[in-house]
Amino acid sequence: MRTIGKQRKKVGLPPGTIVYSGEKRVERVRITLIDYDETHFQEKEAGAIEECFPFKEEPTVTWINIDGLHDVELVEKLGTHFGIHPLVLEDIVSVGQRPKFEEYDGFLFIVVKMLSYNDERNELLTEQVSLLVGENYVISFQEREGDVFDLVRQRIRGKKGRIVKQGADYLAYALLDVIIDNYFTILEKIGDRVESLDERVVGDPTPKTLQEIQVMKREMIFLRKSVWPLREVISGLERAESKLIRKSTGIYLRDVYDHTIQVIDTIESLRDMISGLLDVYMSSISNKMNEVMKVLTIIATIFIPITFIAGIYGMNFEFMPELKLAWAYPVVWCVMVAVIVGMVTYFKRKNWL
Amino acid sequence: MRTIGKQRKKVGLPPGTIVYSGEKRVERVRITLIDYDETHFQEKEAGAIEECFPFKEEPTVTWINIDGLHDVELVEKLGTHFGIHPLVLEDIVSVGQRPKFEEYDGFLFIVVKMLSYNDERNELLTEQVSLLVGENYVISFQEREGDVFDLVRQRIRGKKGRIVKQGADYLAYALLDVIIDNYFTILEKIGDRVESLDERVVGDPTPKTLQEIQVMKREMIFLRKSVWPLREVISGLERAESKLIRKSTGIYLRDVYDHTIQVIDTIESLRDMISGLLDVYMSSISNKMNEVMKVLTIIATIFIPITFIAGIYGMNFEFMPELKLAWAYPVVWCVMVAVIVGMVTYFKRKNWL
Amino acid sequence: MRTIGKQRKKVGLPPGTIVYSGEKRVERVRITLIDYDETHFQEKEAGAIEECFPFKEEPTVTWINIDGLHDVELVEKLGTHFGIHPLVLEDIVSVGQRPKFEEYDGFLFIVVKMLSYNDERNELLTEQVSLLVGENYVISFQEREGDVFDLVRQRIRGKKGRIVKQGADYLAYALLDVIIDNYFTILEKIGDRVESLDERVVGDPTPKTLQEIQVMKREMIFLRKSVWPLREVISGLERAESKLIRKSTGIYLRDVYDHTIQVIDTIESLRDMISGLLDVYMSSISNKMNEVMKVLTIIATIFIPITFIAGIYGMNFEFMPELKLAWAYPVVWCVMVAVIVGMVTYFKRKNWL
Amino acid sequence: MRTIGKQRKKVGLPPGTIVYSGEKRVERVRITLIDYDETHFQEKEAGAIEECFPFKEEPTVTWINIDGLHDVELVEKLGTHFGIHPLVLEDIVSVGQRPKFEEYDGFLFIVVKMLSYNDERNELLTEQVSLLVGENYVISFQEREGDVFDLVRQRIRGKKGRIVKQGADYLAYALLDVIIDNYFTILEKIGDRVESLDERVVGDPTPKTLQEIQVMKREMIFLRKSVWPLREVISGLERAESKLIRKSTGIYLRDVYDHTIQVIDTIESLRDMISGLLDVYMSSISNKMNEVMKVLTIIATIFIPITFIAGIYGMNFEFMPELKLAWAYPVVWCVMVAVIVGMVTYFKRKNWL
Amino acid sequence: MRTIGKQRKKVGLPPGTIVYSGEKRVERVRITLIDYDETHFQEKEAGAIEECFPFKEEPTVTWINIDGLHDVELVEKLGTHFGIHPLVLEDIVSVGQRPKFEEYDGFLFIVVKMLSYNDERNELLTEQVSLLVGENYVISFQEREGDVFDLVRQRIRGKKGRIVKQGADYLAYALLDVIIDNYFTILEKIGDRVESLDERVVGDPTPKTLQEIQVMKREMIFLRKSVWPLREVISGLERAESKLIRKSTGIYLRDVYDHTIQVIDTIESLRDMISGLLDVYMSSISNKMNEVMKVLTIIATIFIPITFIAGIYGMNFEFMPELKLAWAYPVVWCVMVAVIVGMVTYFKRKNWL
Repeated sequence: MRTIGKQRKKVGLPPGTIVYSGEKRVERVRITLIDYDETHFQEKEAGAIEECFPFKEEPTVTWINIDGLHDVELVEKLGTHFGIHPLVLEDIVSVGQRPKFEEYDGFLFIVVKMLSYNDERNELLTEQVSLLVGENYVISFQEREGDVFDLVRQRIRGKKGRIVKQGADYLAYALLDVIIDNYFTILEKIGDRVESLDERVVGDPTPKTLQEIQVMKREMIFLRKSVWPLREVISGLERAESKLIRKSTGIYLRDVYDHTIQVIDTIESLRDMISGLLDVYMSSISNKMNEVMKVLTIIATIFIPITFIAGIYGMNFEFMPELKLAWAYPVVWCVMVAVIVGMVTYFKRKNWL
Repeated sequence: MRTIGKQRKKVGLPPGTIVYSGEKRVERVRITLIDYDETHFQEKEAGAIEECFPFKEEPTVTWINIDGLHDVELVEKLGTHFGIHPLVLEDIVSVGQRPKFEEYDGFLFIVVKMLSYNDERNELLTEQVSLLVGENYVISFQEREGDVFDLVRQRIRGKKGRIVKQGADYLAYALLDVIIDNYFTILEKIGDRVESLDERVVGDPTPKTLQEIQVMKREMIFLRKSVWPLREVISGLERAESKLIRKSTGIYLRDVYDHTIQVIDTIESLRDMISGLLDVYMSSISNKMNEVMKVLTIIATIFIPITFIAGIYGMNFEFMPELKLAWAYPVVWCVMVAVIVGMVTYFKRKNWL
Repeated sequence: MRTIGKQRKKVGLPPGTIVYSGEKRVERVRITLIDYDETHFQEKEAGAIEECFPFKEEPTVTWINIDGLHDVELVEKLGTHFGIHPLVLEDIVSVGQRPKFEEYDGFLFIVVKMLSYNDERNELLTEQVSLLVGENYVISFQEREGDVFDLVRQRIRGKKGRIVKQGADYLAYALLDVIIDNYFTILEKIGDRVESLDERVVGDPTPKTLQEIQVMKREMIFLRKSVWPLREVISGLERAESKLIRKSTGIYLRDVYDHTIQVIDTIESLRDMISGLLDVYMSSISNKMNEVMKVLTIIATIFIPITFIAGIYGMNFEFMPELKLAWAYPVVWCVMVAVIVGMVTYFKRKNWL
Repeated sequence: MRTIGKQRKKVGLPPGTIVYSGEKRVERVRITLIDYDETHFQEKEAGAIEECFPFKEEPTVTWINIDGLHDVELVEKLGTHFGIHPLVLEDIVSVGQRPKFEEYDGFLFIVVKMLSYNDERNELLTEQVSLLVGENYVISFQEREGDVFDLVRQRIRGKKGRIVKQGADYLAYALLDVIIDNYFTILEKIGDRVESLDERVVGDPTPKTLQEIQVMKREMIFLRKSVWPLREVISGLERAESKLIRKSTGIYLRDVYDHTIQVIDTIESLRDMISGLLDVYMSSISNKMNEVMKVLTIIATIFIPITFIAGIYGMNFEFMPELKLAWAYPVVWCVMVAVIVGMVTYFKRKNWL
Repeated sequence: MRTIGKQRKKVGLPPGTIVYSGEKRVERVRITLIDYDETHFQEKEAGAIEECFPFKEEPTVTWINIDGLHDVELVEKLGTHFGIHPLVLEDIVSVGQRPKFEEYDGFLFIVVKMLSYNDERNELLTEQVSLLVGENYVISFQEREGDVFDLVRQRIRGKKGRIVKQGADYLAYALLDVIIDNYFTILEKIGDRVESLDERVVGDPTPKTLQEIQVMKREMIFLRKSVWPLREVISGLERAESKLIRKSTGIYLRDVYDHTIQVIDTIESLRDMISGLLDVYMSSISNKMNEVMKVLTIIATIFIPITFIAGIYGMNFEFMPELKLAWAYPVVWCVMVAVIVGMVTYFKRKNWL
């Protein structure tokens, strides 16, 4: 996971120059349009962005979703038609943005991060999602086709719940809500990995375990960077004095805010746990070293003295009276056994065996 | 103790969908109702939630306590009758909530965590308690049947103290008070475990001790997460400009607030102590390694030189004049003893023995 | 030093129940009364609390000091006569309070911690002191008889300084001032112990040293908990808009506030130093291990090769031409000496000797 | 990289004394002047500062860029003509300034740090850039000739984008924008180095790696010191109620502010990663030590016992019945092989082999 | 450096009692008086404090400097004449004050710390400087004769710069400015020591190096305690609504404030570096241990197996066919050499040699 390079902006280009800064993640930009109110529902995939323009004027809620950000021309056309400031367009296609909320005349601009988890490679993926919220439209930009928004689409299609009775601000809330709800799924997966690591770190601490701890630590640094600013984003939305956000939506935003705080709390707890893993790893290593040292010490301490005794009677002095005695050899054996027994007793008392 | 997974919300369901997110901890939801004022007292166990509805209109204080949150339908009926916002009902049955306080038209909503301690398994248990405080009623929701509230019930039954002369706000205060008082009991138990760990960590630091330190560390992370937001909850209640909280109750809330701060202080102190334990553990391990190394070094350093001497006179050279001398053998013994004495003296001077 | 258990409140009793939560530290509650103004001075020891009641109405400043908190009945009588809120009385006898300042109608309530140092057992002792400050009276509660307040008594008796010309607020200030001044004495003693530890930690780091560091660390955690809230207490007093605090006393409170900040600064510095001691301890241990290892390595590295040489000529092959040569034995000795010299030179170059 | 000494001010000189505090980095001070509006463009290199003075009065935007700060006289002349406060001139030539923003009558004063990276020596270089922003002029001061501003120059020359239609405030913004955009390039290089270090730290941790980690740590301390105050600088500019900053420029400043926050976020992430590297380094070292110990232990534990057996039968007792037995020698060999096999099995089970 | 004891106040004395709390650092209190305005200059050394009193009434700026604080009577006389509050006088002679700024009727009271560096003993010295700033006078108190203020004296004598045209507030500023400028000199010296330590810590980490790191760490704790409050002092001065500080002086105070922030920044950087040194020290120690272990392991691992081989053929079995073979001895030598070569190759591959 490269966490640094992506934020790079094209140095030196005039501000407001719209240049896509990410990798091209989808072949073709896909534009889907949903237009609805309590009685009416229309969904279509637009071949060209111009097909969406007529909906701007209609009183029904229009949701334009754009998957893929590399078609800069399309974004510019959209911007011109909907009256979006060039700096906003620049931010939409610069995928290293920090989550943020900005109020403009006639629309609100929200940038958040959508997370997904590659189960095969145990890798955390991130994607920038920008929302433009107007009087009666929401335009959402994603780096690639995602399935999280499908949950909202189904609710609109099925005319389930409050959503079809509410305005564009509620739609924007609903999109933020599914994005943040999705964080809980991601955090649960990370929680599972922390627990699996936890077991391995005590049972079998290898350098690979350490590397995994490091990777998780970085993921948390990265996650934190994506989520902390969300707090301000949501509370900014809640407090915004814009006419674009109805009072009745405020209570739902407070609910999203609570979830954001929960996500942040959980991230902080996971960070604390992962830091704890490092401590456990370090002491597991120390423990293993200790055990190795004990084995060496026990072996050496038992055999060195008795080897010395054997060495004594390996000397070739002519006048060594013991050598002539028939019972000397068994006695030496007894002494050796006594040394072994003494040592083992000593280690037992020291709790080394 | 799983600290992460529980917070998970059902991703993608429309907001306000009431789905119980915890484990089913009681077989049957139990509804108890206490209705009282200074002169009047009624207590009953309601078979169905509808039995409680008439009490809403009466001027006496009504306390409805619901043990078990999995009967979603019951919660919905209650919500409809008492005019509770669907998002509040959703929060009541989602057991991973952060403690919070919210003001609504006509009622206050309070979420706190109740702690208990499983002595057998040395495990900290947590339970979400939600309070709905209206003009003349308090509805409390618990995950399972608890005995902490019995203390309040007895006071009402016995008409002891101020409680029967006061309104629903005082009842809510009394419930919060026993919940927070109970934290002190829990913290004392944790304090005892810290002290017991403290002794073991110096005397006999095993990998199991380390694991126990880690478990306690996590418990503190978890406890902290449950208690820190309480501060805001209580001070929010104290400052709330709702008509539902009488002025005379304010002074009692300040008292609860003081206790909350004391709980937080104690948690922070315990955290510091547990962190300290890890340092002691690490250096106990180092100390033990040091001791092992010393034994090895002493044995090796004494015997290696004298074994060498024995080796010398084990050589088979034909012309080794010493071998022929009658006093050579005792002299060699003397040299060896001298080496031993020298080494021991050296170690004594180094404070190794 | 138990830092946790003391804070425990009696769980479940109705709020305002006055139950002494500490150990009984004095046999008999002692009530002393001093009544003074610029011209008048009266001091007596009251047998019963009722003897103090008439002084409430008099315009002179009355100081009632109560040593020992276990006589709950006495406290209650006092409370009733002076119109003290039951929650305040509860706080006075619950000795695990956090320092705090509260304004009530007609009186101010101040809780602080008084410290003392048991030199024999090198132990920090703490005692809760509560002050009730009214229009023309101060009532002080202590857990046991203390000598710090004697300094104030002597000033009143001797009519020294400003004190006799000022009101009850100045008396309260004077009492806080001696309590906080006393902290400096305590901190100096701790500072001395830190310095003594500092020397031992480098010279002779034993597990006992580690334990002492841990004890001091905890004392600092404990001290910090007692002193940090003092800051708010004093600044609360300073800013209080109560008529009970005259403007002229404000400047003295600012002085006490400065001292409190100094105490906090010093505690933080001591904490930093004690943390530093742990680092030094850990590396002293590492250094010692290193030294042990070096001795082992030097001995082993010198003798292992020459023992091998001796081993070679201890072999019993029939055809070992060296064995027959008369000068072989001295040559072998020379080789051995050469190995020794070589090794020693190598170690010298490595700075190991 | 010396991070301390540069900040030194000339002690004791009267304030407002203009003394250059850096090293002389360019031979000759170079003055370039660009004067432009939507229709007009003039660029020249001025031989003397006086050539720039007439442009002060003209309504077109004038950008005077000065490379090299050691010509104190020049700065003073400029200051006198443009009415700059002596303390500002002092700050311009004292190159250890903290980034700051100050409003004066008639002009704004901005100090920032420009970074560059010496690829050969892997060294981070810093340079102080001061901007004086007036009604229709910007004066920029650099320590040496830089190429980052060329990007702005080209935009003016080419009349590209908004810049030529805007005033001096937009020019100042454009200069700040390229400086901060350049930070991303620097951070990416540092990110690359962190990743390269990361690999080496696991694979081959040498003391040199440690030193490199330390150097990077210091670079981050230094970078942080340069960038953190930028936050206040930009937000100060944004909030400034000066008439010198038009409303239309505000939105661009908010964009720069976002970039600054991103830079700070990235620096904090890098700091966390570099701290993590140290942990990995320490445990890599421990791991290597562990491996060394294991080899020693395995060798010693296998050979010490069998060497002892050989020692036994090297004894010269006359009555050792085994020595006479023809099959004793092969049996001893078998015992030795059995010992080896036993040990190897034991180590295999312990996961040491 | 004792950092704790000095702050001790005389416990129990009435507040406002003027008792010198430091060591007597000068033999005789020295009073110097400078009286000046734009046209007039008078300098004299006063034998008695009373000689200074007449200057209080004159419109010229009067600077009374007092070196040595132990003459409490002198301070009291001064206080009475100039109308200084007793608590201020107490603070002036209590040398453990925290830097602070207080406004009183008719004068301002400023306490700061002056630093100096004993190059011989590599020791940081501190001295309390108090300033009383009135309408047209400044009274400065120092613990001993210092030379930093000479820089200001020379400027007044030489009528250089702004100083003689400004009032007492500018003089106070000028004194603060030289004190804070002097911090940069001190920090540079500490920076040099850090760099010298840095080299030694990698090259030759001895326990003495560790002690030096600890000493520097404490010096930084101490320095920080002296400098952090300065921030508030200066910004307090800047914001003070006292008539004693003219508007024109405000801009100079802002400059001093900037320097204070720079000093704080530098101290924090130095602290970070010194903490880093400890990490390097610890891993240098580990590295050295590792090297020792390697030498031991290499020697042991090479010689233990071949010593075993020698041991085999040192056995005295009668039936050992190898012993009779003429070429057996050279073959054994070859085997031994092969073992050595094998081991060395193994170590080479492991990068141990």
